[in-house]
Order: sequence, then structure tokens, then C-alpha cells
Amino acid sequence: MFDHQYLWPNGSSIDDQFEGAEGLNIRFSASRGSMSLGESQGGLPPDTVVEDEDAILDSSRGAVGRFHDGSPGSMRSVVIAPCSPFSVTPELMRESAALARELGVGLHTHVAETADEEDYCLENFGARPVEFMESLGWAGPDVWYAHAVHVAADEVERMGASGTGVAHCPTSNMRLASGLAPIRRFLEAGVRVGLGVDGSASNDSADMIGEVRQALLLNRLAVSPGVGDGEMITARQTLELATVGGASVLGRSDIGRLSPGYAADLIAIDLDRVEFSGSLHDPVAAAVLCAPQRVDFSWVGGKPLVADGEVLGVDHRRLVEQHNLLSLRLVS
Amino acid sequence: MFDHQYLWPNGSSIDDQFEGAEGLNIRFSASRGSMSLGESQGGLPPDTVVEDEDAILDSSRGAVGRFHDGSPGSMRSVVIAPCSPFSVTPELMRESAALARELGVGLHTHVAETADEEDYCLENFGARPVEFMESLGWAGPDVWYAHAVHVAADEVERMGASGTGVAHCPTSNMRLASGLAPIRRFLEAGVRVGLGVDGSASNDSADMIGEVRQALLLNRLAVSPGVGDGEMITARQTLELATVGGASVLGRSDIGRLSPGYAADLIAIDLDRVEFSGSLHDPVAAAVLCAPQRVDFSWVGGKPLVADGEVLGVDHRRLVEQHNLLSLRLVS
Repeated sequence: MFDHQYLWPNGSSIDDQFEGAEGLNIRFSASRGSMSLGESQGGLPPDTVVEDEDAILDSSRGAVGRFHDGSPGSMRSVVIAPCSPFSVTPELMRESAALARELGVGLHTHVAETADEEDYCLENFGARPVEFMESLGWAGPDVWYAHAVHVAADEVERMGASGTGVAHCPTSNMRLASGLAPIRRFLEAGVRVGLGVDGSASNDSADMIGEVRQALLLNRLAVSPGVGDGEMITARQTLELATVGGASVLGRSDIGRLSPGYAADLIAIDLDRVEFSGSLHDPVAAAVLCAPQRVDFSWVGGKPLVADGEVLGVDHRRLVEQHNLLSLRLVS
Repeated sequence: MFDHQYLWPNGSSIDDQFEGAEGLNIRFSASRGSMSLGESQGGLPPDTVVEDEDAILDSSRGAVGRFHDGSPGSMRSVVIAPCSPFSVTPELMRESAALARELGVGLHTHVAETADEEDYCLENFGARPVEFMESLGWAGPDVWYAHAVHVAADEVERMGASGTGVAHCPTSNMRLASGLAPIRRFLEAGVRVGLGVDGSASNDSADMIGEVRQALLLNRLAVSPGVGDGEMITARQTLELATVGGASVLGRSDIGRLSPGYAADLIAIDLDRVEFSGSLHDPVAAAVLCAPQRVDFSWVGGKPLVADGEVLGVDHRRLVEQHNLLSLRLVS
């Protein structure tokens, strides 16, 4: 699992995330995200949530030092991830890239999620988002962009040529009316594409197995008459986005496949249920298309993480109660 | 529940459907669907599945006589529903409309699901699908079309003016790469819009509560930059498609609302689950957006149909086993 957190209110930090993962058999990659360009400076976020850029860089270096393990089979890693070209300065983007390369960690940010961002980049930097990111050193096999919806054909080619990847977030792009990401073009251009559920502000269900189906549905719509053209994506291609593709954008060659030399990261779904009725001749297609309601079992590195649909090592009921209390307090 | 069945192989008939519903507390409307124009006559279906048109009309009259109850609170009704303009003759369409009006039952068919159908109608009948259906008497408050994807702005207006309705099938339209139905235009033009999951050949999950979320997501995408424009549909509007809208296309003023004088048709979802965590401040939005995995309870006319997520009166396990056996036999 990779998480892109870029808001650190009330003294929270990436340490809290790794503390939360403690004792769970989850393969967890967290980002030291950041926002530094407040509204008063022409940025997107309110001034109250932005941080000082030197502090961001110091803290990023510290997070990598404390938590990053780049060895094969690693269970914990850190990525450097300013929020978006809207919300940090070009200088922080450039320095983040230099720092990540010095430390040998990945780089991630939001690029071209909305048409607004395209306008913003053209107006402020005289370049479209992908070209602008390239000019800051944000291209290459250690970089992947979240969303990449409003990306023109020539930008797709540039991303393919530089080896830059994409986290495709189908539900979020629909939920927020962001637009249709050019996934077929990405795949044809050899762009690495993984699958994301985005955060709870943009998708009300952090359900990765459901997102695989959504990726199939959205990318079939994308090639329908009146919308676009091309070949229809298959169930297996969509499942690959979530497995091989996800591992690839994270820069890992030790996970994402069931193959000798790879970690034994597995899921299991009980197909003996009404929702899979009539689909048993093709279990792979069934797991993508029949709207699975849960993963019944999962193993990470051969050790159990989920059993009978429940995450092991978590007091589920207490956590939901606490979350509901906190969220009601936040809303009221 | 409404079902549009139009294939009657091996001596099967609408009687089998009503027999299947026997003993279940389900409000069931079945269609006497039909196909009469085989490939050899220029139609879509293979010649082996088409029926004789006189036999279709006789059988339709018989089905209405045996099963249709048009009284308020009715639990069983029949609709006359030739498959599509591709698969029956214009004469059968015309005679079906006349018969339905004589008997006082509804009319349903596929219209403008695919761009192919538009081409077919223009080529064969010199009119776009909606105009062609109008010319056959297929417009009015007793008519609703399945899909209605490739419908031009002026056709939307005509449908609004005649009171013709639509069954919107978001997942199916994505799954089959059919296209984007103009739902926002329909709603603005006062077209009645209900929600459908389509059949198992076009949607691998007959999950109505999931389809409500899909309708929201698809119709938000429909107003995103590069795709289309307009206001974003809300959770409540989407839920209305599945309730008020569905009742309306079925021509019913006794269901679809929780209101004095209406039947007590209710669903209940247990929000005390991890998928709804943090959403309790707005239970309606939660039930639409948080990807509910099941309806926990339902009542039809105040009597239980679903309890603890299981349909009452059905031997669930035996049915799934039987379905899996039959479907494996079909595929092999």
C-alpha cells in the first residue's frame, strides 16, 4: 500500500503513519507530502496549512533516514511527494527531486488532475503540466504522477520516453468530474500505469478490488462512440494495472507477480457466493467483473494480513467507533 | 422489480418467471418480450431464436390475462416489450403498441443503446431511433425505452413532450462501451428516468444499490472537462432515479416514495460497518457514495423480503450450486 499524505495539522507527521502500521503485516510505502504555497502567494491551499520549504526538505530527509528500507522484500519505504504544482513553488519541486535522487527514493505528485491545473500552468509557467514538470527534473523511472487526466497526446509520448509513471484513479476522476485519463494511450506509449483509490475526500470507498472493476468500466466507456475510440480493455489487463502496474510505479521488481523470486503477496476471494454465481468458468474475469464485495484472505510475504474478510491485528469495531466519533465532531 | 426477457428457448415462457416469483414477497413486473426478425430477414438475432409475430401477440394477450394486476398495490404485472427496432418488424412494434393500449399495460423496448442502431434506423427507416419509434406509436406516458444513449438534443425534447421514459443502465453502458446517455438533458426536459442494472450478459452484477453509486459517478464524469458540461448530479438526485424515477417509468403512483398512501416498500442498510466509517453525518449520501455491499433488510408492502442480507423464501445455497452447474454446462 502507498499513501500520499500532504497535510500535517496539529503536529501530526509521517511518524504517526508508520506507528499506525506497526504490528500490521502490511507492505507500506508512505510519502512525505507537502504544501508550501498558500493562497496569499497565489497557491491553492489556505495559508494555515502550508509549511516552510526548508523544514519540508529537512523533514523529508529525516523521514527517509528513519523509515526507508530500499532492500528487496522491504515492508516500509518513503517517497518524497510535494502535493502539486498548484501548492508548492517550482524551487521546492526541483529541490525535492534532487533530494530524492541523492537518497535513492521515489518521487510522486499530482499532475494534470483538473483542467484548471492546465490553465494554471500555462498562465504561470508558460507550459503544460507535463512539460513544466519535466523542466523541474520531475520525469524518469523514479517518478509517477497521480491522475494525469488532462495530458495531451505529445505529453503521453514524452512520459513514455522518459519512463514516468501514472497512478490512475477512476472513481475519483468520476466523483470529482475531473475527466477521462488517456489510459489506452498511456499503455500504448509504454507508460507505467498503476491503480489508486485516491483519498476519502475524493472517493468514499477505499476499495481496491472494486477499483479494478471501475477501471475496466471507465476505460471501456472511454472507447465508446461519442466519447473516444480504440480497443476495449480486458479483465486481465485491468487486473494487471492493480498488480504489475502498481508494483512498477513504486519502482519494485520484488512484488506484483506470482513468480519465483517475487514476494508471496496474495489475495483470495471465495467465489462460492451469490455474486459470483454462473461465473466459475473464468475465475479471473469473475474477480474483476462480478463486483466482489471483499477480499476474504490476503498474505503479504507469505504471512496473513486479512482472514475471513477482517484485517488481522486491528480492533475493527473500536476503530470504526472512534473514526465515527471524530468525524462527527469535525463536521459539527 | 421489472425484468425484460425476450428470449424463450426450449419451451420457456413468462409463466416460468411468475412461477419463480411464487412464494416470494417480491413486487414483480415481467415483460412479454419478443424477437421476430432473424438474420436472414436483415435483423440482429439468429433465425433460431425468433418467433412468429401472430404467436407473439397471442401469447402477449394471454400473459396479460393470466398475470397482470393493474390495481393499486399490485404485486404482479405484465408489460409488452419487443426487444428492439433491430429485432422485430415495424408491424410488430405497431401492433404491440395497439395491444398494450387495448389491455391498459405498459410498453418497453431497447432504443438507441448503440451507435449501430442509429445507423440501422437511418439506413432502413430514414429516421433516427426516437423519431422512428414515435412513428410507430411508441411514445407517451405508457412507454419507456431501455438505454436511450444515442439520443440527440431534439429527440430528448420530443421525449419530454410526449412523456416517454428511460431506463438508464450506467454499468451496462460502460461495460459494453455503448456510450454516455444524456441523463442531465433528460432530467432538464422532464423525461422520466429510472435506473436499471441490465441483464447478466451486459453487467456482471445485478446490484441495484451499487448501480445508484455508478449512476452518480458516470453522470459526474459526463459533466467533466473534455467530456461534457452542466451541473454535477447529487447523491439525492441519483437515489431518486432508483426510487421515484423507477416507479414513474413503471407508470405507478403507489410505490417509490415513503409517503402516506404509498406502499411500505423499504430498504435498510446497517451503517455500523467499516465501509461507512466517518460518513454518519449524512446517511443518505453514505448509502449512495460509500459503495454499500448489501441491503440488510427490505420490506415490500410492509412485509419482509430480505433479512440479514438474505432473500427470504429462497434456498440460496442450492440455487447458486444449480446455477453454477448449469452455467458450466452451457460454457463447455
